[in-house]
Amino acid sequence: MANIKPAIPKGTRDFSPSEMVKRNYIFDTIKSVFKKYGYQEIQTPTMENLDTLTGKYGDEGDKLIFKILNSGPLISESLVSLSSDIQKLKEENIKINIEDERIISQIEGANAYETLGNFLWQDRKDYDASYKKTNYDLTKLLSEKALRYDLTVPFARYVVMHQNDISFPFKRFQIQPVWRADRPQKGRYREFYQCDADVVGSDSLLNEAEFVLIYYEALSKLGLKDFTIQINNRKILSGIAEIIGKPELIIDMTVAIDKLDKIGLDGVIKELIERGFTETDIEKLEPIILLKGSNVEKLESLRNVLSNSKIGLKGIEEIEAIFNYLYKLTTHNSQLTTVQLDITLARGLNYYTGAIFEVKTNEVAMGSIGGGGRYDDLTGMFGLKDLTGVGISFGADRIYDVLEELNLFPENTGESTRVLISNFDSEAELYALPLLQQLRDEGIAAELYPTAAKLKKQMSYANDKHIPYVLLIGSDEMQSERLTLKDMQSGEQEKLSIREIIEKLS
Amino acid sequence: MANIKPAIPKGTRDFSPSEMVKRNYIFDTIKSVFKKYGYQEIQTPTMENLDTLTGKYGDEGDKLIFKILNSGPLISESLVSLSSDIQKLKEENIKINIEDERIISQIEGANAYETLGNFLWQDRKDYDASYKKTNYDLTKLLSEKALRYDLTVPFARYVVMHQNDISFPFKRFQIQPVWRADRPQKGRYREFYQCDADVVGSDSLLNEAEFVLIYYEALSKLGLKDFTIQINNRKILSGIAEIIGKPELIIDMTVAIDKLDKIGLDGVIKELIERGFTETDIEKLEPIILLKGSNVEKLESLRNVLSNSKIGLKGIEEIEAIFNYLYKLTTHNSQLTTVQLDITLARGLNYYTGAIFEVKTNEVAMGSIGGGGRYDDLTGMFGLKDLTGVGISFGADRIYDVLEELNLFPENTGESTRVLISNFDSEAELYALPLLQQLRDEGIAAELYPTAAKLKKQMSYANDKHIPYVLLIGSDEMQSERLTLKDMQSGEQEKLSIREIIEKLS
Repeated sequence: MANIKPAIPKGTRDFSPSEMVKRNYIFDTIKSVFKKYGYQEIQTPTMENLDTLTGKYGDEGDKLIFKILNSGPLISESLVSLSSDIQKLKEENIKINIEDERIISQIEGANAYETLGNFLWQDRKDYDASYKKTNYDLTKLLSEKALRYDLTVPFARYVVMHQNDISFPFKRFQIQPVWRADRPQKGRYREFYQCDADVVGSDSLLNEAEFVLIYYEALSKLGLKDFTIQINNRKILSGIAEIIGKPELIIDMTVAIDKLDKIGLDGVIKELIERGFTETDIEKLEPIILLKGSNVEKLESLRNVLSNSKIGLKGIEEIEAIFNYLYKLTTHNSQLTTVQLDITLARGLNYYTGAIFEVKTNEVAMGSIGGGGRYDDLTGMFGLKDLTGVGISFGADRIYDVLEELNLFPENTGESTRVLISNFDSEAELYALPLLQQLRDEGIAAELYPTAAKLKKQMSYANDKHIPYVLLIGSDEMQSERLTLKDMQSGEQEKLSIREIIEKLS
Repeated sequence: MANIKPAIPKGTRDFSPSEMVKRNYIFDTIKSVFKKYGYQEIQTPTMENLDTLTGKYGDEGDKLIFKILNSGPLISESLVSLSSDIQKLKEENIKINIEDERIISQIEGANAYETLGNFLWQDRKDYDASYKKTNYDLTKLLSEKALRYDLTVPFARYVVMHQNDISFPFKRFQIQPVWRADRPQKGRYREFYQCDADVVGSDSLLNEAEFVLIYYEALSKLGLKDFTIQINNRKILSGIAEIIGKPELIIDMTVAIDKLDKIGLDGVIKELIERGFTETDIEKLEPIILLKGSNVEKLESLRNVLSNSKIGLKGIEEIEAIFNYLYKLTTHNSQLTTVQLDITLARGLNYYTGAIFEVKTNEVAMGSIGGGGRYDDLTGMFGLKDLTGVGISFGADRIYDVLEELNLFPENTGESTRVLISNFDSEAELYALPLLQQLRDEGIAAELYPTAAKLKKQMSYANDKHIPYVLLIGSDEMQSERLTLKDMQSGEQEKLSIREIIEKLS
């Protein structure tokens, strides 16, 4: 075996014990809230069929899907069968309308590998659709499976596959890693966890209201004090595009106004003009974009602006229904003040059809730490029509960074060993063994240092592992049966019986 | 988007909410025991560099590693660069000793794809080593990353990479999925969880003894009553091969006698002869293989048999030291009676150098539900020498099947919604909303059915979700403020105030 300098792939991470404790603290907190609201956990496989994922994330997304190489014999056979496929393609030349003879000619030439390379992942735009299809088929010969790219598409696949076993409305949560072949950079990984809750099969806006409460409760439990839950509704955005008379430009409009935070009003106006809006359109849009005041005031203004748009009014009605649920459900006023209607919020995602959520902390400069919305036809892509879904997601990695920066992780997470028994010599070790098990029988996480090493080494082991107590057993202690318990934080030592120690550590 | 009949890859599984609750119960139980013994959790990336994994699992293992296709531009460039590689190969023809001109000639011919297929995954044995090297390089052009195949190699990689941050002895546990391109069959999956605990950097046999206790405590907590923790030591096996005079045949010997359970004594003898042992050898071996009696009696006999083998005696000494630790550590006699010295135990794994463990349940016919051992040079493959490791693994999937068969999963795992509030009409819904949040504020997982559906539908929702209580709110209830709480198990109903309900459900 060669000595390879060990490394891990770019954009992936190892998690050390102390990182795991903190990550688990975040996940466990969020899980406990999901469960309290009736959400149940599922897990889906890491690998999905490539067919399941392809075409669901747009062309850019498709490129970022990690594909699994078909294993052993299969790929060999596949590549062998390729030449006959090419032959067939050639015979059906006219039918499939291959205009570019280069492909065919190159196949038989010396540059076959280059051709294959081009076939598999080429970017030339002048090859026609039939070529593109071939290209896709060739990719399939190499790969039929891929790594999970998000949790939503596998969840839709799950719902359709198991529809007969599911009692709707189905409230599920899922916390699993996903993979994206993105360029790694600070805060952006190729493997990261998503943390989603969704309900399918219920159009009640109670679900939306409860998601606001779930955000509020989970983030408060994690110690965050100042955050904003922004809410919008796709129907309001549609209404706005409608009253401006540019319903066909809704995507362009939302993409532009979504950037208000980043590029300011002038930037937004510039982009709107580039995207085909006129000065007159912008005159109408500007006051809407700059809408100020309380949620009630904003809704009041919007109702005037959108009075001629049926869909716009429907959006307002939905937002109001969510607020009404919230008034009835909230026991703390702060729960309501964190919710803000923001009509510039679009999340750049075209598939939302109703509510849109985004959560931001105001304590640290950081992008959104959560988001979600309603999509009316979640499972349509797998042939199950008219099943509505609404869901939210927590950005666990960003929340981790926020808690770290604000020093909000609890000091003692109670996950580590409570007490280390020192080991001076074989006599002390023998004496310690039954005590060790006695502590564990009382549910106290305990370790005996496994060899009679120098005390300094044992102490530094306890320190590194954040073990709060060390039990020192020397000849005095064995004789008196009063053991020395050292508090590693304060440095204080006291002589105690094993019963007293158990009481203290329990 | 096409309507694809949704499916998941062969050998992978979805886990439903009820399966997740059971799986979490197993993992949480094992985790709690690991922690009590001072083990800390780590996680490693799903993808490792192919270099990290290749060559660690034998030729057969290498074939079963799932490889990730290099993404986008890379693979295109790689395949393009292939022709120049081939050219270079051709120029260096004599130097790299390519005897098979077929490769070169085919490259320029029309069957280039077939050639490439052969290059990548061919099984022909007549190609020489330089070809094999090329083959490996070509594979790398397609793939540089692979899915985690087990937890041990990534752990060794982790230890070497982070050696300066680790305080040794390092006691870590890890519960993550692994992937193998094996042929799927009943009970064998392509994606499954491993559940490992290992300690590196301590040669104390206390670690081995504690692993016995970890097995005992975790399996007992899971409700198993009759199981056997088999223990052996590689040095005893070496000693036996030595006194027979066939030390070079130790692997053949262990592979054969490991099958005693399955093929019986006659079968073992037949295999031993096939593997090069003589009748005289077998005369010496037979009484050792058939060793009966208590652990103490077996050790006594072995000491006589192995009196001339230094390494054999060392093995006996190690086993005795482990037993001595256990005598001191155990508080229940049953902990000791579950441990059995079994000198046929080898686990077919060549890398164990000391203790070997295997756990079997005696209540259900099932293979081993756990195993492990000591390997003296765990991190040597990554250049860090002389770091000894010992570890165990729980077979979570098999344990799941055992608990299912013995009906040992707890009835109420407390993971689900405690109470569903029925929803008859908008008036009742309004009335229910503050109650719903009051229950949740008391930490009670509660749901309000999100629409005013038929009672039957709401009841069957509660049933399917195993919700133990339903709160019925009709006009009587709203007037009297005494709500009807229905126990879904017994069918009993009682009228209670919200305070009484909270008390009952807390």
